[in-house]
Amino acid sequence: MAIRTHECGILRGEHAGERVVLKGWVQRRRDFGGLIFIDLRDRSGIVQIVFTPENSQEALDLADSFRTEYVIEVEGEVKRRADDMINPNMETGMVEVYVDKVELINKAKTTPFQIEDRIVVNEDLRLKYRYLDLRRPVMYNTFKMRSDVTKVIRNFLQDEGFLEVETPILTKSTPEGARDYLVPSRVHEGEFYALPQSPQLFKQLLMVSGFEKYFQIARCFRDEDLRADRQPEFTQIDMEMSFMTQEEILDLNERLIQKVMKDIKDIEIPRPFQRMKYDEAMARYGSDKPDVRFGLELIQLSDVVEGCNFKVFAQTVEAGNEVKGLNIKGANDKYSRKDLDELTKYVGRYGAKGLAWMKVTEEGLTGPIGKFFQDEFGQKLMERMGAEPGDTLVFVADKRSVVADSLGALRKKLGKDLGLIDESQFAFLWITDWPLLEYSEEEGRYTAAHHPFTRPFEEDLEKMATAPGEVRAQAYDIVLNGYELGGGSLRIYEKELQEKMFEVLGFTKEQANEQFGFLMDAFEYGVPPHGGIAFGLDRLVMLLAGRDNLRDTIAFPKTASASDLMTEAPSEVSEAQLDELHIKTKTLADEL
Amino acid sequence: MAIRTHECGILRGEHAGERVVLKGWVQRRRDFGGLIFIDLRDRSGIVQIVFTPENSQEALDLADSFRTEYVIEVEGEVKRRADDMINPNMETGMVEVYVDKVELINKAKTTPFQIEDRIVVNEDLRLKYRYLDLRRPVMYNTFKMRSDVTKVIRNFLQDEGFLEVETPILTKSTPEGARDYLVPSRVHEGEFYALPQSPQLFKQLLMVSGFEKYFQIARCFRDEDLRADRQPEFTQIDMEMSFMTQEEILDLNERLIQKVMKDIKDIEIPRPFQRMKYDEAMARYGSDKPDVRFGLELIQLSDVVEGCNFKVFAQTVEAGNEVKGLNIKGANDKYSRKDLDELTKYVGRYGAKGLAWMKVTEEGLTGPIGKFFQDEFGQKLMERMGAEPGDTLVFVADKRSVVADSLGALRKKLGKDLGLIDESQFAFLWITDWPLLEYSEEEGRYTAAHHPFTRPFEEDLEKMATAPGEVRAQAYDIVLNGYELGGGSLRIYEKELQEKMFEVLGFTKEQANEQFGFLMDAFEYGVPPHGGIAFGLDRLVMLLAGRDNLRDTIAFPKTASASDLMTEAPSEVSEAQLDELHIKTKTLADEL
Repeated sequence: MAIRTHECGILRGEHAGERVVLKGWVQRRRDFGGLIFIDLRDRSGIVQIVFTPENSQEALDLADSFRTEYVIEVEGEVKRRADDMINPNMETGMVEVYVDKVELINKAKTTPFQIEDRIVVNEDLRLKYRYLDLRRPVMYNTFKMRSDVTKVIRNFLQDEGFLEVETPILTKSTPEGARDYLVPSRVHEGEFYALPQSPQLFKQLLMVSGFEKYFQIARCFRDEDLRADRQPEFTQIDMEMSFMTQEEILDLNERLIQKVMKDIKDIEIPRPFQRMKYDEAMARYGSDKPDVRFGLELIQLSDVVEGCNFKVFAQTVEAGNEVKGLNIKGANDKYSRKDLDELTKYVGRYGAKGLAWMKVTEEGLTGPIGKFFQDEFGQKLMERMGAEPGDTLVFVADKRSVVADSLGALRKKLGKDLGLIDESQFAFLWITDWPLLEYSEEEGRYTAAHHPFTRPFEEDLEKMATAPGEVRAQAYDIVLNGYELGGGSLRIYEKELQEKMFEVLGFTKEQANEQFGFLMDAFEYGVPPHGGIAFGLDRLVMLLAGRDNLRDTIAFPKTASASDLMTEAPSEVSEAQLDELHIKTKTLADEL
Repeated sequence: MAIRTHECGILRGEHAGERVVLKGWVQRRRDFGGLIFIDLRDRSGIVQIVFTPENSQEALDLADSFRTEYVIEVEGEVKRRADDMINPNMETGMVEVYVDKVELINKAKTTPFQIEDRIVVNEDLRLKYRYLDLRRPVMYNTFKMRSDVTKVIRNFLQDEGFLEVETPILTKSTPEGARDYLVPSRVHEGEFYALPQSPQLFKQLLMVSGFEKYFQIARCFRDEDLRADRQPEFTQIDMEMSFMTQEEILDLNERLIQKVMKDIKDIEIPRPFQRMKYDEAMARYGSDKPDVRFGLELIQLSDVVEGCNFKVFAQTVEAGNEVKGLNIKGANDKYSRKDLDELTKYVGRYGAKGLAWMKVTEEGLTGPIGKFFQDEFGQKLMERMGAEPGDTLVFVADKRSVVADSLGALRKKLGKDLGLIDESQFAFLWITDWPLLEYSEEEGRYTAAHHPFTRPFEEDLEKMATAPGEVRAQAYDIVLNGYELGGGSLRIYEKELQEKMFEVLGFTKEQANEQFGFLMDAFEYGVPPHGGIAFGLDRLVMLLAGRDNLRDTIAFPKTASASDLMTEAPSEVSEAQLDELHIKTKTLADEL
């Protein structure tokens, strides 16, 4: 075997006359006029290689046995192509390599799908043959980008004085939050480790240790039913820092993102990023992660329709609920009655009992509820909504949360359907001033909106006992194009406040101690003010690479039922293995 | 709270006259002449701050309440110390900060041990209060170095065209090798994931994918009984590359290590590193990871003592076993008969039935077996051993493996006891040409010396069936100062050879398919030649930082019984959690 001299994809006119050794895969073979042409592929790209009887009859004969995806090694001379043979669609299209020595390294069966970017194939098949799926250039390029992104992030943070510290994967189960993956202990009979949902407690303890600036690109685990954008294991860019204000933390992260966008996408993102309080985001966009690349904002109408003739609206306001609408500019010709019925069904999925609508025409307001608004209520409503002839107005009247959810979702759908979104734009946005707690009907108690270590606003502290739902948190999420990219908060660093927080969450002292005793202990030995943030790396890469599936950013992902179709994990294990771990499967136990 | 302007440890004479805001921990407080002096510590170091009535009576009063490890914030002016007050033992000893504003951020109880480098304290206590242990500068500096080491490694590899790719933590159990940690599946009743012992199969599959150059700083897991230098989870610097020869791989890794040594320790390591075949290492050092910083090599004597008057030696050789010795130069005065009895006990631990010895004096050979060597055998033996008056000669006569183990261990011990080792030296060494297989008496079959994917020497292939124990592997370990730092190999990339390997290891076709079917499938689709290596990061950092305990290089390590003394993991979990996972603890199941 000879030493490779070049990668295929880098050959250009300037290499003409050079002898090269290439190694790679047969992408395609064509026989023409007694010659054999092969597109040879490696991770850098493709170059055409030519076998001729003049250069080597022996090589030509061997090449005759080559099939797609065979691994070969060739040696030969780079030649500039004749002007009329130049292929402008190939980066190496100026040249071809005339082969005089060739070696067959490995054969290949016909692959279950073609190794090309544009294939239409069942995702399960791609996952079963993930090693072939990853051979497609679009996949390689995504993972190249992922590697580059982490490089930029690490270097930025290390240059800023952050230490990368690894925290344990075998940790303690803390049932607050999502479901834990458990690991039975062989040494400690009947006891279990848990895989971490995040390094939260460990990174806070590193602040207690005075590490001051910590980061980690950390694997995290949640045993939840998977949606399209969830994986049982995922990666987060995890940071924690001491002695910094919220503003300093946001500024640092803006500079980090700016650096990533510049180095990876060559896009300049101006600073400071847009900031919006949670309440404002919910009011204007019906979402805590609004896509601000387009308008079509939710318009508050409760005050305008109070006492109007359309009883549904009037009564909604009277009952203390809310009426809001969207003005779909110039959409009258685009949405038929049937289309609007479809939109009604769409908002129904978000709990809205209906979608009222009107069309603004030169002749006035028309449509099902138009007749109720032929008065000054209609005038005020049109004014508030900036309505002009041609506009379609849609409304939801319901509980505040239903209005937000349904109109927020409708806004996103319309933005996409109507092509209102500039897909080339990257709109970053901070959402701040979150609620600290949310009431869980299911559990009959307040739960932490973020997590139990989030710091309340000092001025809201007195409401902790009286009006927990109104306490704001010193928390911040970063949103990109309608996706939550990350989030964080300042943390509680006083033992008394942390105890109070556990109390509000309904923990007894014993429960708090059993689960978080070591943290409470640590809080007695001089804890600095600290805060942090975590970004979802998988999602960041997905957005940067322009993919629409998280699985395309994870080398060996799992399906919605948490299976690896390639290795067939999870799988049965031997009785002896379980015995050593002091456990039995329930089925087996039940048979006894 | 004000914005911090400087870190404590960086203040120097040039800062005199500047106003600064510092934040940190009270290391020490002294009251003197109505003033208060505090050593203020942050991660950068310590600076002395001074409270005086002239600067602020209020600050002075507050400072009077400060105790060790309180977290405080101070504002004041940097002043150069009077010449006779300069402290040459402190990096900031030229200056002190006169405080006029101070804030108490957090109080601290008395810590269970002092936050200082040199403490004598039970390790269990350090682990229980790990967040305080990590506050000690020596610990912080170790983790700073660890972070720097990974930075150098990542940048080097990414600059060399390697992609960092994350492989799964929830994988399939493959019982070959060490014991797996298992994770019960909630979705798939009765099935389990395993935590990976290494990313071996995934990185080979990435080569099948044509990624060509992969690396990962990967967490790995082994559920083994822990020795001092083992942890249930550990980190490895993991690489795999295609189309490269063994020589290219070694060269790349030498350049990597050279870079690490230069950037981290400012030490130039010459290349190429020393190379030694496994057989030679075992013969000369009795070890596959010899410390080559000193001589005291094992001397082969079987041919010299064949037929000699000392029957133990003569019979050993006759039985096909081995006699080897060490010449402890000039040690006659250092080792009394009693000392040599101790050494005899020492080699006994390695299976040696005894340690024969002689002393070389001006009068000839003395000591227990001296009388047997007053002839030409004695002459030849002294010649072979380079013996001169003053030298002590020690011998083991036994089976080859016992001779190697016992004299290899004795050599290390003597090297340390006699101060033969230059501790400032970093002696890197490659051990190559390993055996592919080793016979396991316990299992009654050959097992893979490295792992089942290691590539045999082409010229030894025919011995696979006839003399498996003699087949050499294209494998290599890197050794530093007597520690195995890492190891790797070229891999099998042909389906037929891999099948043959499984066969030699005693797998049935079904077993091979069940466990490694996906790999065997992958081998049909055009696999490039590839190989890789993995370094133990924890051990590398331990050696670079001059620590002698792996736990000091892991932020939150586990004890020998795999417990985390701080969080008390593993722990009991709720019945509900186990129910969801379809398992029962055996104790519970047995009660049913």
